[in-house]
Amino acid sequence: MRADAAPAFLWLPGLRGRGQEFALESDDAHYVARVCRAEIGDTLSATDGEGALATLEVLAVRGETRVRIRTLRDQPRPGHAIVACGAPEKDRADWLVEKLGELGVADLQPLECERAGWERFDSRRDRLERLAVAALRQSRRAWRLVIREPLAPAAWCAGLEAGGERWLADAEGRAARLEAGPWACVAVGPAPGFSASERASLGEAGFVGVRLSEARLRTETAALGWAALWSVGCAAKSVDRAQ
Amino acid sequence: MRADAAPAFLWLPGLRGRGQEFALESDDAHYVARVCRAEIGDTLSATDGEGALATLEVLAVRGETRVRIRTLRDQPRPGHAIVACGAPEKDRADWLVEKLGELGVADLQPLECERAGWERFDSRRDRLERLAVAALRQSRRAWRLVIREPLAPAAWCAGLEAGGERWLADAEGRAARLEAGPWACVAVGPAPGFSASERASLGEAGFVGVRLSEARLRTETAALGWAALWSVGCAAKSVDRAQ
Repeated sequence: MRADAAPAFLWLPGLRGRGQEFALESDDAHYVARVCRAEIGDTLSATDGEGALATLEVLAVRGETRVRIRTLRDQPRPGHAIVACGAPEKDRADWLVEKLGELGVADLQPLECERAGWERFDSRRDRLERLAVAALRQSRRAWRLVIREPLAPAAWCAGLEAGGERWLADAEGRAARLEAGPWACVAVGPAPGFSASERASLGEAGFVGVRLSEARLRTETAALGWAALWSVGCAAKSVDRAQ
Repeated sequence: MRADAAPAFLWLPGLRGRGQEFALESDDAHYVARVCRAEIGDTLSATDGEGALATLEVLAVRGETRVRIRTLRDQPRPGHAIVACGAPEKDRADWLVEKLGELGVADLQPLECERAGWERFDSRRDRLERLAVAALRQSRRAWRLVIREPLAPAAWCAGLEAGGERWLADAEGRAARLEAGPWACVAVGPAPGFSASERASLGEAGFVGVRLSEARLRTETAALGWAALWSVGCAAKSVDRAQ
């Protein structure tokens, strides 16, 4: 790896300020020193996943891999998108997390539904967190997807911040449109759907049905389709800003 | 399974006309007779994947599982979307096919690129075809995703039907918008990107850069994001028609 072609993009919680020096932890150190073959003086990029973007100078690669923060800036979040989602079938939560992370969704809220629960959530949590970090690094974003504790739809609605666009993925809903913040959320049912009382809770909380396809979509596909709309809306807004 | 709650949706190439009787092949017969526990007189649904939608009456479930076509109608394609795509990394072609199928894309055109080829295409073709059929059944569509033979970008462009919207997934492109046919295609590069000559071929063929996210997306995520826009555009059009 040479200085200006640095492909390395690290997730380093706790980036504090310019000039800060520290040793990378073992996985990052291995990646930087052995996979990227960084040398002293090379430049790396990093984020804390909470809006900070840094460039790092490599100070040492033998023994400890030490770095110093050369520049640090805050990147505002383009908007705040929440995907609240019933449990996908089989291993599809893996790629749901990967793709929501790449597309820049802020929060994944697992919904514990009457007809289907996130039964393997606790045992898979570490894996899902690793996938969220991998997606952050892949997409070189400054904001990491946060995976929330599972909640029933009514409990989740009760705790939602006021305002925002509130959509419910629904084959009978109105035509979807591009989203562009400042904040929006979508609720997606599990394969057997929301129960009548869950739909009532969502309706009372202001969720409006939105149609993402003419055909029926799997849980994770509907979630991802909406996230893609969000992502395109954010990209359009940032193109507008740049012009 | 009872007659009016029939969850079974089969892919049966060769549906000919009302009154046609035939025995289901082994996998479908097993699914209908053992998994759905269909009984004589029950109703099933089926498509040939080329626009025909049928209801079938179950005539026999012991020994052979025999059915008769009760109704048959043609469903027009909502529009024709083509996703031409460099090879995704690892096993991500699997879910690319699953999701493009669910979202109603007409064709997946694998692109053999200078910097990355679909090296395992032949050995994985049967698996990809099965996933396309599973997505068809899951989404209960009348049109099946067709997986084309890999082509280099220039060869693919040379054979493209005239007209249509032609997009190139590109972080520097213009803001994306909802698509709604009659036909459109997107070209997505592999992880290392298109080469300069490949980009030139696409540019000469009228492909225009389009931005799907503010951050960089994996190959399959960009393909899927565009397909989601297409799907939402088609759904919006069909909502308009219905009103």
